[in-house]
Amino acid sequence: MMKSSVNNSLVKYYKKLRDKKYILEEKKFIVEGSHLVEEAYKSGVLLSVISTTLVSDYGVPCEVLSEVALKSISLLKSTPNIMGVVKYEEKSEIIGNKIVLLDNVQDPGNVGTIIRCALAFNVTTVILSPDSVNLYNDKMIRSTEGTIFNMNVIKMDLKEAIKKIKEKGIKVYYADMEGSINLDNTKIDDYALVLGSEGQGISKSVASLCDNGIKVPMNSLCESLNVSVCGGIIMYKFR
Amino acid sequence: MMKSSVNNSLVKYYKKLRDKKYILEEKKFIVEGSHLVEEAYKSGVLLSVISTTLVSDYGVPCEVLSEVALKSISLLKSTPNIMGVVKYEEKSEIIGNKIVLLDNVQDPGNVGTIIRCALAFNVTTVILSPDSVNLYNDKMIRSTEGTIFNMNVIKMDLKEAIKKIKEKGIKVYYADMEGSINLDNTKIDDYALVLGSEGQGISKSVASLCDNGIKVPMNSLCESLNVSVCGGIIMYKFR
Repeated sequence: MMKSSVNNSLVKYYKKLRDKKYILEEKKFIVEGSHLVEEAYKSGVLLSVISTTLVSDYGVPCEVLSEVALKSISLLKSTPNIMGVVKYEEKSEIIGNKIVLLDNVQDPGNVGTIIRCALAFNVTTVILSPDSVNLYNDKMIRSTEGTIFNMNVIKMDLKEAIKKIKEKGIKVYYADMEGSINLDNTKIDDYALVLGSEGQGISKSVASLCDNGIKVPMNSLCESLNVSVCGGIIMYKFR
Repeated sequence: MMKSSVNNSLVKYYKKLRDKKYILEEKKFIVEGSHLVEEAYKSGVLLSVISTTLVSDYGVPCEVLSEVALKSISLLKSTPNIMGVVKYEEKSEIIGNKIVLLDNVQDPGNVGTIIRCALAFNVTTVILSPDSVNLYNDKMIRSTEGTIFNMNVIKMDLKEAIKKIKEKGIKVYYADMEGSINLDNTKIDDYALVLGSEGQGISKSVASLCDNGIKVPMNSLCESLNVSVCGGIIMYKFR
């Protein structure tokens, strides 16, 4: 363990780890705050911690840095006094029989909230289309509240993913206001559910590969639900 | 209708309308983009529009301003070519028998999403505690997708609100992981539901006034749900 309140090269290294290129090269990214550090630790992906005081709780190296140095690494308005360096693992296997697919969902808060729901409701794999938010996006990670470390989240072309899911004998649904299946009357144990971006919905080419659309019945005064709420309601029902 | 591509005093006036003090004085606020303008119009609260081209669709005055002027008024990264000046109405009456109360929920995205869900699932009044986000907060309004113009949203001390709700004979519940009522086995038509902030949950003084806690059953790997997803699931079930 090394104490270095003004270690410029280390600080530079950590700052680089906020950048896509270095995250992919180093296969590491930074999370901020004690809750995410704790969750990363519990999931066995915590490599080291960075803090203003020596932290020995996690059995991983701790770099002690000044508040100013920590602030320069942080992406948050109010800098936490602990951050974690976390292993970035690229996963590729579609596991289990409750699967959620996100078709170009860009908002990191929505993606993170959906991953959190997925863990709550026994989803086994979350698949993001290649144009969805990055898997180490800071806001997305924070919105998962650390649940991402316990979830099989992969990036994959959705057409390829749907083909593989169908080969497993699992039906693929998409959430849609015009869907022919009314959620009220439906309980499905094995499923794949495609959720689309709020602006554009699900792309036609993906929807055409699905078996059916599911609608969450609602008051006609409201045109649609937020994508994470819509997904959350369906996942709750099918858990 | 007045065409004024560089009307400084007008631009200044609109910029002031982004400020709490002036919103409350003038009882007007600004919304950005055609969707919110359209929704405000349909709900009868649109007073005028501001645009880069003359818009006569809404039967309200239109101020034509330059792109630069519009950009200076906008709070968004990408400035839309239309904004609306909307009537700010303070409401105070608790209407109906499906009521949602927010105890110090600060995140504007969550509050907006909850208001959107409320309209979808036949909630008649949404009550925000005085320390919750402001009712004209730009991000909150955007997250409602305009549904706020169709919803009875009021600010009120929650203890006072709970007293009034109980006088109407409606039971008051709060959402809580430790709640004694399991949502799976419950269907309630008339209800008031208190949702708390994500960090702190519901304040003890408010929880002590409620009749019961409701829990959304979930996998124990997940500690909690996002507040708008949790609220959305309960509102869907009780709609």
